[in-house]
Amino acid sequence: MTDPRLAALAQALPELRLLTDAADLEHYGRDWTRRWTPAPLAIALPTSVEQVQAVVRWARAHAVAIVPSGGRTGLSGGAVAANGELVLSLERMNRVLGFDPIDRSLTVQAGIALEAVHNAAREHRLAYPVDFAARGSCSIGGNIATNAGGIRVIRYGNTREWVAGLKVVDGRGELLELGRGLVKNSSGYDLRHLMVASEGTLGIIVEATLRLTDPPPPTSVMLLALPDFAALMQVFASLRARLQLEAFEFFTDRALHHVTAHGGQNPFGETYPYYVVTEFAAGEAGEAAALAAFEHCVGEGWVLDGVISQSQAQAAQLWRLREGITESLAPYVPYKNDVSVRISVMPAFLAEVQALLTEGYPHFDVVWFGHIGDGNLHINVLKPVDMAQADFVAQCERVTRLLAEALQRHGGSISAEHGIGLVKKAYLGSTRTEAELALLRGIRGVLDPDGLLNPGKLFDR
Amino acid sequence: MTDPRLAALAQALPELRLLTDAADLEHYGRDWTRRWTPAPLAIALPTSVEQVQAVVRWARAHAVAIVPSGGRTGLSGGAVAANGELVLSLERMNRVLGFDPIDRSLTVQAGIALEAVHNAAREHRLAYPVDFAARGSCSIGGNIATNAGGIRVIRYGNTREWVAGLKVVDGRGELLELGRGLVKNSSGYDLRHLMVASEGTLGIIVEATLRLTDPPPPTSVMLLALPDFAALMQVFASLRARLQLEAFEFFTDRALHHVTAHGGQNPFGETYPYYVVTEFAAGEAGEAAALAAFEHCVGEGWVLDGVISQSQAQAAQLWRLREGITESLAPYVPYKNDVSVRISVMPAFLAEVQALLTEGYPHFDVVWFGHIGDGNLHINVLKPVDMAQADFVAQCERVTRLLAEALQRHGGSISAEHGIGLVKKAYLGSTRTEAELALLRGIRGVLDPDGLLNPGKLFDR
Repeated sequence: MTDPRLAALAQALPELRLLTDAADLEHYGRDWTRRWTPAPLAIALPTSVEQVQAVVRWARAHAVAIVPSGGRTGLSGGAVAANGELVLSLERMNRVLGFDPIDRSLTVQAGIALEAVHNAAREHRLAYPVDFAARGSCSIGGNIATNAGGIRVIRYGNTREWVAGLKVVDGRGELLELGRGLVKNSSGYDLRHLMVASEGTLGIIVEATLRLTDPPPPTSVMLLALPDFAALMQVFASLRARLQLEAFEFFTDRALHHVTAHGGQNPFGETYPYYVVTEFAAGEAGEAAALAAFEHCVGEGWVLDGVISQSQAQAAQLWRLREGITESLAPYVPYKNDVSVRISVMPAFLAEVQALLTEGYPHFDVVWFGHIGDGNLHINVLKPVDMAQADFVAQCERVTRLLAEALQRHGGSISAEHGIGLVKKAYLGSTRTEAELALLRGIRGVLDPDGLLNPGKLFDR
Repeated sequence: MTDPRLAALAQALPELRLLTDAADLEHYGRDWTRRWTPAPLAIALPTSVEQVQAVVRWARAHAVAIVPSGGRTGLSGGAVAANGELVLSLERMNRVLGFDPIDRSLTVQAGIALEAVHNAAREHRLAYPVDFAARGSCSIGGNIATNAGGIRVIRYGNTREWVAGLKVVDGRGELLELGRGLVKNSSGYDLRHLMVASEGTLGIIVEATLRLTDPPPPTSVMLLALPDFAALMQVFASLRARLQLEAFEFFTDRALHHVTAHGGQNPFGETYPYYVVTEFAAGEAGEAAALAAFEHCVGEGWVLDGVISQSQAQAAQLWRLREGITESLAPYVPYKNDVSVRISVMPAFLAEVQALLTEGYPHFDVVWFGHIGDGNLHINVLKPVDMAQADFVAQCERVTRLLAEALQRHGGSISAEHGIGLVKKAYLGSTRTEAELALLRGIRGVLDPDGLLNPGKLFDR
């Protein structure tokens, strides 16, 4: 620990765990994007709010930038530390701090994994309903910092709706207690909502009070095969009208191809252009309604085949076909787009985007999936094995520029749920006006006057 | 129109309607608080977003403060113009601009009345579920500017949850398009949520895209008589566990006294200390569950009497006992507190507040009501007829100081749903720390650098 700044930190906080080994710098310096070379100054692993505040005060004094760090499962480079920053990992602050049965709330430290939150809620016969495939490794602080969405937004909304209170250390080292778990509070600007989706640039989330809800009803899972994208919107409308949908996810034949190559089981004898995995409230009425909806969709030609889960094990198998996609693509270092438009705009937008991608990526493997009921598309472009990473990214960025223009025309967003981070920074202007960007910069300056918190992420100052 | 500033405005915007008659200045210069003497410079009634922007640009050039104005049904003085401000009334911008059946959204101008939003949603067999007694005269812009709550928060949340998009003119005259109706959008700080509850100090809300939902189920209404406050929490827990509650409101015998003096009908032969009006999903299962819950509560001694609506007319009569309270108290120019704590904290807080009020207001008529399921209490102190207004307010403020201290100890809020405005400005520090207040000031400076928008409201710069 020869760096004099680190020596000062170690002296000021002798009990703070600091890592500087090369392997640790690499491990904590990157997220799931794998596009930047990790190069942090060091890793700090505080165990208390006071330590976090002390680290921020140290950072101010020594002009060291801080990258707040959770599970680093992010897909936008928001947790990348490639410029000598101090990574402030919340992983040792991962406890449940309290549960209140009357408020139906769970208070946790920010470093806790999403799955541990699920389990803690379940212990009290309640549910924390935000869910997605990275549940085992992502942290709740990271979920909040990106307003994570996932597979149940259609019914339960995004992370934002479930945050009743936040403790945050801002760029001045001040501890803010926002929201305080109150149902009603109209006493000045809601800084809690400002923190949600701020990607670590306004403050370091250290604790959260989460609202819980009733456990979901018993559900069944259905896999449907579809002929084309137009059918997707029809099937969604048809099922939404008849069933209590808990999830409605789609993916393409290319996605299924990669998942089955990774051990997923295709229950159909053949392949189809598009698939839907949907989960809905079961019981006799639910099953009957599902059957009626299925038959209606088949009759209309919107659905070509289908299978409904008869057991929890089978439901898990069907879900795996959707949830295994990201993992199955990881070896190809995919270039990801995570875009959204209003649901009503989806058909027109889709037609335009399909044409654009066919034109832009004639030789690449493009895998689509997403949350059609939320207006959210994930477009993954896979790198050809023999292509240099830099060339590949450059070619993808050219198409992203066109995609961003299409989004601008359709009033959409360049990031639905992954965040902007480093990956989409150049395209933020397609979603936000110059007048808005000026406000974002101004607000960042208020909460982090010295520019210490996750600099270079979201937008440049 | 001898004022040269107004002459300049009239010249710049010849089509803008401007009012300067004394009666208009008084009418548009005050809200339901009736505590301040209206003294605006003039009233502007724009009909377009462009006119609003032009008025803001004029205000910057001439250093005239602007008070954004909706239905002026507010109870915090947020729409009061007592210092030569220009009142910018949105009342001529009151149209429905669009409806989308796929997005299930309604786009409206900010000056539309809440009730007109209800009706527009109903026309499309959907519902906008935020509701309260001022529905006929309050505007949706004002609802958003205070994050209005009301009688159905327990089931549907506050106004905030239903705002999918906002158009706002900020203090620089810039038009911001926030949220854009997207379900998912993680592309920078959510300024839409910052605008909600900003009380006209960060921007002038000119349009809103509101999310709609399924119409509520058929409901029944039950009026219950209770012996004490402790029973209230028990009855709430008991009913919540058995029924799908759409509303759960309480009030005291003094509230019933005033409402029945104004024509409300007490269905009981005698009076009781406390009452609950609750609305719940009906149908056979609902009625049976309500009866079981009622019998359980009677058996436990938590409920002394009860009546359940047998018709819509009877349901409306029971609701009137709760909804007529504010109107019945208005002649007494009540001093209002609108406070909240976490639901779990309510019993301890209530005990403390009851002691405090008994001690602080030995000779005043104190009327309680509120939304116990949201942790929200309304405390109305009635002015004795022979007491000067100034003396009365001074005595009430002394007690509010103690109430604010109790709230601080219990982690509560000095304003649950009315907003801070002028009325609670002195007490904002009980709910927000100095560090937070510094941030609020900084953010206000970013969005309204010249301090034109509703100066003096919420907090002083």
